[in-house]
Amino acid sequence: MIPLVSIVGQSGCGKTTLIERLIPELTGRGHRIATVKHDVHGFEMDREGKDTWRHKRAGAAAVAISSPTRVAVIADVDRELTLEEVCDRFMRDVDMVLCEGFKTNPVPKIELFRTGVSTELLCNETDRLLAVVSDRLFSIGVPCFGLDEIPRIADLIQCEIRGAAAKPELSLYVGRAKIPLTPFAASSLAGMVRGYVGALKECDPSRSIELLIGADDETLPRATR
Amino acid sequence: MIPLVSIVGQSGCGKTTLIERLIPELTGRGHRIATVKHDVHGFEMDREGKDTWRHKRAGAAAVAISSPTRVAVIADVDRELTLEEVCDRFMRDVDMVLCEGFKTNPVPKIELFRTGVSTELLCNETDRLLAVVSDRLFSIGVPCFGLDEIPRIADLIQCEIRGAAAKPELSLYVGRAKIPLTPFAASSLAGMVRGYVGALKECDPSRSIELLIGADDETLPRATR
Repeated sequence: MIPLVSIVGQSGCGKTTLIERLIPELTGRGHRIATVKHDVHGFEMDREGKDTWRHKRAGAAAVAISSPTRVAVIADVDRELTLEEVCDRFMRDVDMVLCEGFKTNPVPKIELFRTGVSTELLCNETDRLLAVVSDRLFSIGVPCFGLDEIPRIADLIQCEIRGAAAKPELSLYVGRAKIPLTPFAASSLAGMVRGYVGALKECDPSRSIELLIGADDETLPRATR
Repeated sequence: MIPLVSIVGQSGCGKTTLIERLIPELTGRGHRIATVKHDVHGFEMDREGKDTWRHKRAGAAAVAISSPTRVAVIADVDRELTLEEVCDRFMRDVDMVLCEGFKTNPVPKIELFRTGVSTELLCNETDRLLAVVSDRLFSIGVPCFGLDEIPRIADLIQCEIRGAAAKPELSLYVGRAKIPLTPFAASSLAGMVRGYVGALKECDPSRSIELLIGADDETLPRATR
């Protein structure tokens, strides 16, 4: 699982600006950063008249555009995905995901507070609050940084990246549902597959492994299920 | 692997329009259709000033926006992804991907030819050409449909969907590279994992299985590798 930190705070307090300042600080330290923005109302990403926009309007459930430097995808979902699902499905090759919003998701958070915009802190001790970034001091048992202390906030985020790197994980999905596994079940399954991969030609079993096994019931067109 | 069909043809011959007409025909038959558009030059998907646009401009390698009905992602890539990679990484819950362009990818193709725009057919017999859609007749050993024969073209595409549904597949990636497997190696690995999953509580091993095993070298921040 890619480490996640969510920047939360009342609307208009400057979350996007804080993320804009953190990204170059963290990329400058050698990390590849992704972002996920929470949108309550629905959003327009594409531009009217573009081919992808026309595909979507015609009823495509998902549209993608692929170039030599960039890929973009817009996909319908039946329900709002959790942050973990967004990252599992769409994020690769990044070291950390900075999220904007997602206050109710159980991920580590940094709360942004700005006098005149914010009235009170949104997070409490049950919210996995890592720190507060504010123009006034809060003494609530977590670090409180000033609005311009970008390097110190980045230090804290870097600790999360390092902590996650120390915990390799196994995820198993059956029929697209995530299956909780005991440490024994996870490590025996990982060991079995790694052992198998190690016996294949030119495969280094210490690298990441991804295994997809398709099943009849799900590859059949919906109409014929 | 989700079945793919690519619509190819010279620029301006009406590929997007043909796809726009095929999508409602196929969704009306109960299929969920995705599209992938090929872009040679690089594209702009986002809108200037939006939060995701600001995240990307600040240097995020990938940005996503998630709402209750839709998810969008824009991600940098080191090289152009193959169609198979785009679909493996980003497409779920769809029965078929209609592609626009991608003439050189080894996927089944339908070529669109329009007198006055097209000069000669782009595909030959080595290109997995399924059919030609044209305003003049080609006798080249594959079906030739008129520009308005949308239901008949959809029939042909539906055959591809059904053909793919009959072939469940296993894909193995190690260190993000796809590993070619013999039918024996694929079926023994699939059988072993299915057997394991079948022994877990409340898991139906006949459904699709996805297994991700993280490795230290890849979850470490790039700077510390």
